[in-house]
Amino acid sequence: MKGKLYLIPATLGESDVHMVIPSNVIEIVKTLDEFIVEQEKTARHFLKSIGYESSLDSIILHPLNKHTSHEDILIYLDNAIKGKNIGLLSEAGCPCIADPGNIIVQMAHQKQIQVVPLVGPSSIYLSLMASGFNGQNFAFNGYLPIEKNERVKKIKELENIVYSKSQTQIFIETPYRNNQLVQDILKTCNKETKLCIASSISTTDESIATKSIAQWQYKLPDLNKKNSIFLLYK
Amino acid sequence: MKGKLYLIPATLGESDVHMVIPSNVIEIVKTLDEFIVEQEKTARHFLKSIGYESSLDSIILHPLNKHTSHEDILIYLDNAIKGKNIGLLSEAGCPCIADPGNIIVQMAHQKQIQVVPLVGPSSIYLSLMASGFNGQNFAFNGYLPIEKNERVKKIKELENIVYSKSQTQIFIETPYRNNQLVQDILKTCNKETKLCIASSISTTDESIATKSIAQWQYKLPDLNKKNSIFLLYK
Repeated sequence: MKGKLYLIPATLGESDVHMVIPSNVIEIVKTLDEFIVEQEKTARHFLKSIGYESSLDSIILHPLNKHTSHEDILIYLDNAIKGKNIGLLSEAGCPCIADPGNIIVQMAHQKQIQVVPLVGPSSIYLSLMASGFNGQNFAFNGYLPIEKNERVKKIKELENIVYSKSQTQIFIETPYRNNQLVQDILKTCNKETKLCIASSISTTDESIATKSIAQWQYKLPDLNKKNSIFLLYK
Repeated sequence: MKGKLYLIPATLGESDVHMVIPSNVIEIVKTLDEFIVEQEKTARHFLKSIGYESSLDSIILHPLNKHTSHEDILIYLDNAIKGKNIGLLSEAGCPCIADPGNIIVQMAHQKQIQVVPLVGPSSIYLSLMASGFNGQNFAFNGYLPIEKNERVKKIKELENIVYSKSQTQIFIETPYRNNQLVQDILKTCNKETKLCIASSISTTDESIATKSIAQWQYKLPDLNKKNSIFLLYK
């Protein structure tokens, strides 16, 4: 019998682990000693924060980055094929959602390894819940283009979809570019269009506000270097 | 100072509460005694399952259904405006995601009540994680049309978006119509298009498989009456 591939979420920033990871998820993670991770240091920090009991020296950490090849992944999955449970651990939030790891999961399906997604925080679904926007129809678009004209064109396109399909549009930006993105949204969108800005989700600095473009124009928050997520709706 | 509106997820079906709800979320829920809920019976069952300690007789449960008016909601939010923390509790999964409650959150924002989304299970993000599909760009479309021609047209439209925008397409169906939906997908989509079927997420019957349309045509699962979610990608 083959082992399982557990998809393990991690805290978003310095949030309380017991606010965002269920206790029995923590128990499952403690039974594992082989993980696929983006950065060793963050992975060890997370495992320590959940009270991981085995020696952190004896665990196996396989690196996942842009140099990871299909051949590497086959090696990573080898012990699961032989019957051992292993984990794919996110840096922050949920693996495979605005996060790498999909290729690992694809190959696990091909090898008929059972894939088990575990509950944890994702700024996407948490901000959608708290936005008050349409949760029956929504799209996450990742990062918008960096080039000014392309970006404005994309914002306009997303706003058009809001009105034509009644679909909430969600997107993110590199934190040091947040303020510029908000300026572009305020200049581009209709005054009545609603924008939800959700920052530092699930931390003590969490801030979530939904206002019309006109209301945001009146008073703007400073989002520089704050992990934020942006949602548009009508 | 105003109270907070906590958005409280619930288990999906008969799953283990400690696998899907973080322990400190449970602690927060235990401090509340006023909730907005869809069905009293399910709400009491959930509160009991998390070991809610106050008397279940003395709690205030406000009904949320198609008869709930704006005026009702203003009354529901009244104690929060006066400084008390209250909760919006889902029947299953996360409030406001493929679930009612958005109007409550909208009005809370208007009244400048702090909205706090709590971590829990949602079949949408869990199935997306486990699908192996694109998690940088995805859309949830809710239910497809019931009428045969409309439905086939919609499936074709979603498949086209998969190829034109590289956007994962997610949708659901009423459980007793699942098998018919799968038949329609298999007849409509290209043989190489990939379909992930995720059923009974986070329960002991959980089943998640990603295969090409051609592979699914070879062997089909019986999904009748099983809570399922469907994802298309290339």
